[in-house]
Order: sequence, then structure tokens, then C-alpha cells
Amino acid sequence: MRETWVIGAATTRFGKLAESAREAATRVALAAIDRAGVDPKAIGATFVSNCFGVAEHQAHLGPLVNTGLGIPETPSMAIESACSSSSAGLHEAFVHVAGGFTDVALVVGAERLSHLDTLRATSYFAMGADDPFETRQGATFPGLYAAIASAHQDRFGTRTEELGAVAVKNHANGALNPNAHFQRPISLATYLASPIIASPLRLYDCCPFSDGASALVLAAREVSRRPSAEPLVVRASARAGSIADLQDRPELTGIPASRRAAERAFRQAGLTPSQVDFAEVHDCFTIAEIVALEDLGFFPPGAAARAGAEGVTARDGRLPINPSGGLKAKGHPISATGAAQVVEVFEQVNGTAGARAVPKTEVALTHNVGATGGSCSVHIFGRR
Amino acid sequence: MRETWVIGAATTRFGKLAESAREAATRVALAAIDRAGVDPKAIGATFVSNCFGVAEHQAHLGPLVNTGLGIPETPSMAIESACSSSSAGLHEAFVHVAGGFTDVALVVGAERLSHLDTLRATSYFAMGADDPFETRQGATFPGLYAAIASAHQDRFGTRTEELGAVAVKNHANGALNPNAHFQRPISLATYLASPIIASPLRLYDCCPFSDGASALVLAAREVSRRPSAEPLVVRASARAGSIADLQDRPELTGIPASRRAAERAFRQAGLTPSQVDFAEVHDCFTIAEIVALEDLGFFPPGAAARAGAEGVTARDGRLPINPSGGLKAKGHPISATGAAQVVEVFEQVNGTAGARAVPKTEVALTHNVGATGGSCSVHIFGRR
Repeated sequence: MRETWVIGAATTRFGKLAESAREAATRVALAAIDRAGVDPKAIGATFVSNCFGVAEHQAHLGPLVNTGLGIPETPSMAIESACSSSSAGLHEAFVHVAGGFTDVALVVGAERLSHLDTLRATSYFAMGADDPFETRQGATFPGLYAAIASAHQDRFGTRTEELGAVAVKNHANGALNPNAHFQRPISLATYLASPIIASPLRLYDCCPFSDGASALVLAAREVSRRPSAEPLVVRASARAGSIADLQDRPELTGIPASRRAAERAFRQAGLTPSQVDFAEVHDCFTIAEIVALEDLGFFPPGAAARAGAEGVTARDGRLPINPSGGLKAKGHPISATGAAQVVEVFEQVNGTAGARAVPKTEVALTHNVGATGGSCSVHIFGRR
Repeated sequence: MRETWVIGAATTRFGKLAESAREAATRVALAAIDRAGVDPKAIGATFVSNCFGVAEHQAHLGPLVNTGLGIPETPSMAIESACSSSSAGLHEAFVHVAGGFTDVALVVGAERLSHLDTLRATSYFAMGADDPFETRQGATFPGLYAAIASAHQDRFGTRTEELGAVAVKNHANGALNPNAHFQRPISLATYLASPIIASPLRLYDCCPFSDGASALVLAAREVSRRPSAEPLVVRASARAGSIADLQDRPELTGIPASRRAAERAFRQAGLTPSQVDFAEVHDCFTIAEIVALEDLGFFPPGAAARAGAEGVTARDGRLPINPSGGLKAKGHPISATGAAQVVEVFEQVNGTAGARAVPKTEVALTHNVGATGGSCSVHIFGRR
């Protein structure tokens, strides 16, 4: 297997796109290619994620993006895995490059739903759940994650203020990220005063619906001897699944796919959780960050919530989590999220994260969950 | 690169599914696994294609299928490439197995749109085109392929009766396929009496909208020493793209992605077109089969139409094309089509194609196009 690098990365600001997903995807792809300093013609395969392209009547985005990039002959495909779509695309790009099937690969994730009314947009997001057995029974994603939060509270005594601490931290980080959807800090009092959405989750426990696009360029080490930016060495690219529906799982206080993907990733990388310097994890709800930190092995079960409230996961803490602001404050444009996590790692490693720079950037991890954990991707990055 | 085999294959009948795409996908996956004689737990990755899952409010199908198969921990993702989705899924499965990332991989393609009214279903199919630059200007797939047909007629003098000969042949083959959408032969007179849809294309030049699901199991040779059925050796798996929109292409009498993918595939396999014994090609319209046979190198430009009318591509001809009935008569459930082409190769090689058996089955090719050729996959199969 060949050593594989992320040599370029770019993102739009998350929030509301004035352009189509196709235009945003093409624009960030060009920016990532430019940053990588490669000839677009070197790209051997393009992996585009755009789960809800049908909302823009566009269901074959790859050739449109490649044509826009001036590389129409390059093969493309769309990769979807709900909220973990572009980390699945990254996995495929890694497999193609590491396996020697192409030297350079492009990953693009883009989503735009803000042109729809909220009910219509929400109905698209809900399609990530099990339609007959969850959605039609009245389950929503806030409701499903509320069930996880309730179970976690019941088993570990997780406190409202500890959920709130995740929101406060991630908004503080987002306030320093010019590409974040929300760029203002919130106080715990603001969190506590926000309305209940699905008990125990409040408004500020939930990530927003965002538009956005992010792109990555991968290359084999042997063809990228003089990269324009400091590359990320892909030390591990691992995926796993879980029983699709919450009601069929033996327990709710963790996500089996996260645990399994993390085990595989740490084994691949030959590293342990204690060697990770910072991470971007899937905080679609505050409870999701807490559960992720336990599933990934950073904290024992039941210990992550308190650690977060004590500042361990703050930007200047022992293990900075979601320095970008996370899905919570940076935003969550479904198909762009996984790639955007890696964009943050790229900025941190290149020293271009500005005021949100974390102290140590030797080893970073990204963790991206599809829906309630039917899918999960974990990537570990090091320096060359 | 490891030698990779297709060790199991299965399909539903194409036409109208009474069950959901999820149920059909799970059912054919089980049938393919059963035929392969492998433990489902051996599957290391599942690639599901279901372009229009949103029409069933289901956009994260992989974990639902894997959960139904009893392998929830296995990672899954959705692969889309318009009408070439499950051949793109096959390519990813091949890359994972050949590259040593997993020993066994599952490919499933499923589509169901028959529960929608025709206008709604048609609007989904149209999303494979370029929305602002084609669809909103009034272009439809019959119209776009009619432009290809007109250009071909203009350059090569391709005759209406030669287009009709493709329809007559493929309906004759479909009449022998118990899984075909249309199982009755048509005469050239019936073809000629059918209404014009988009001049010069008539009703019988067009494939139908179908529901259906197909599945394949791939494994590395080294782990499949005693396969239950005669395996297909994947001699080549190649993909390419074209300029997305017809109006931007320098010429319309061929599809650049098909030519490029074919060149790559023949180079990979170390074979020439004359060594292929039979092929399943993408005949979404009769003209598409003619153009494909020229792009793939089976006939010089302008020579395929007459050869077809002379019986060269008949089931008992020198080069049988679409013995299954093709998209034209077997049907075209978008995401299931690419895998279904390989199911036909599997049946032919295993001697289970019944009355539609072709004379020679040493080397077979499948050719699957996305939309008007923005994407194309070509696979070549041999015997062990």
C-alpha cells in the first residue's frame, strides 16, 4: 500500500450559498487543486458527494464538475453515506491512491438546500433515517439523538450543563473561524435559556442546516515530492456500520460504528488515542460529541462530559476537539461535512488556522457519522 | 493487484416491483450471496446504488441493507453515476478487492419509481442531464439521443430499418429472458408503425422505465478456491468521463467516455475487441447500441448499424450483443442496470441462460453509460 497524502484542501464559508452546489463544488475543487499545486489533468478519479442534488434537479454532478475543471475525460462518481458522505468519498480516494489505481484523486462534497422552505429541507434530511420504521413513526433526528442523550444521562448522570459546555466551546471556536456558519460565542446562560427541541436537547444542542462545499486533493507520496503546502499523511482510513435503527440496538450510550471504525483506524495507524493531538468529531448534537469522545477511546464511557466541562477539550486544553467550531457552529452542509473536517486539519497543520490554532498538530483525527451511526468514517493524519 | 472474481450474481425480474427498493435490494443480495456460497460475515464492504431513493424517502440505504443481511458492522456506501451507477459500484468493489482492502465485497443496485406518476418519474430521470443548460432549455433524454441519431444518420447514412433491427433483435432476446420487463418479440413492421417520440427515434427505439434490483458478490481468487458457481474473472474494470453536455462536444457520432473506457479496459485485459465472444452494451435507445459497438471497437465508425441488420449481433451471430434483451427489452431500472449486465454474463458463463445461450462464453464485455455519456464503465470478464 502506498503512502498517501492530502496535498490540497479548500472550503466555502458554510451558511447560505448564493450559487448552486455545482458552482460551489467546482469553485472549491479549483481552490484545492490550486493549493495543491498540481495540474488538474493529473487527477485520475473524482469522488463527488451531494446527497440532495435532486433538490437542485441535478443527479449526475461528477461530469459537470469535471467538465468545469477542464478534465471531462476523468472518471467521476457520486459517493453517499448520509452525513458521512464526503468522508466516504475520502475513503474511496484513499483506496484508489494507496492501492495504486491512480496517483492523484479529488474529493468534493457540496450541499445546498437553503433555497427550499424549512419543511421541505427537513424532509430531505429525514431521509437519512429508516422511513417506515423511524420517520413514519414520528422519529426525527433531534428525537433520535435525544433518545441517545436520555440513555446517556440515565446511565452516567450526564448533566444539562455538560451538554451546554459542548455548545459553548464549539461556538467559541466557530467565532474564530471565518468560514463558520455561526461566528459568535454563546454563554451557558444563553444555552440554558434556549427552548427545548426534543427533551433533553435544546436549540443550542443542535447543529444548523447549512449550505457549503469542501474539497480535498490526495496524491501518492511518490508523485508529490514538492507539495505547495504541508501535506497530511493519511495514517488511517477506516469505516464501519451499525444496526441501522436505534430501536434494534442493544444499547444507546455509544455508536457501534464509531467504536469499530476507531479500532480499525488506530490499528492501521499503529497509534493509540492518547497519541492524538486534536480531533474534529461529529457533533451534529452536543450529545454526539460526548458519545464520540467515548467511542473513539479518548475518554472512558461516562467520562467525556465532565472532561469537556472542565476544559480538557477546549482549544488550549489537553485534547482540543472541534477547533473549527464543529458541525455545531461551523455548520453542517450534509455532504460537505466530512471533507470540511479534513480542511480544518489541513489549516491547523499548515499554521493557517489563525486565532483558533491548537498547540500541537503532529497527529489529528477526524470522525464523521452518517445519520444515527448506520455509517461512520474515522481518519488519522500525521506529518511527513 | 489481486485476481478478482465475481462469484455470485442475482437479479429480480425487471418491470414493476411490489416491494420497496430496500426490500428488493436485500432479497437479491441474499440470493447472490447464497449463489456465491459465502458467509455474509465475510463481506468487508457493501456498495449500494439507488439514485432515486429519495422517491421512497430513503437516502441512506446501505446500513438498511446490511442490517437486513445480518452484517450491520460492515461498512457501506452509496455509489451513483446516473444510469451507470452499479457498474461504478462494481468498479469500487473491484478496486477494494484487487487492491487487497477487503477479500469479499457486495454490489447492489436497486431502483423503484413505478409508484410515482409518469411525469414525476420522468422528472427524476431528467436530473441525469444538465439542469440549467439542457433540461431547462427543453432537452429530454429521447431528444438528446435523437440528436446523436440524427448526427449518425447525417454522417453515415444510418437507416431507420437499421435502428429497428436493434429493437427487433433485443426484443427477440428479451422474449427468452424470464427476468425481462418485455418478454414478447416485435416485428420490424411493428417497429415502423410505432409513433415518433423524438425524430428520428420511435417508441420502440426507447428503453422503458423499469423497477428492479441486481446484486453481485466479488472475491479475491485466493479466498474463493471452491466457488459454488463458475466465477467470472474480472480481466478489466475501467471508467472514463466525457464533456457533460452534448452541445459542448466536438462531435456527436460517438461517446468519448465509451472510447476512453474501452481503450483502458482492453489495455488492462491485454485483449482486443475481436477476442470478445459476446457483450452486454448500454442500449437505452437503439442508436446507443449502434454507437456503443463503434466506440468499443467492435466495428469501424458507421459499420455497426448494417452489421446488426445483417444478423452479426444476433444471439447466434458472430458477436452476440445484449442476449439478455438489453435495456431495450430487459428494462432499465437506473441503478440496477450495470450489475444486471454482469448477471447476464454470469448466467451465460454458468450455462444457466436457457434458450438465450450464446455460442461462445470465454470472454465477455459489459458497457454501461451514465446519461448521455458523462460517465462510462467498461468491464471485461474471462474464465478462470
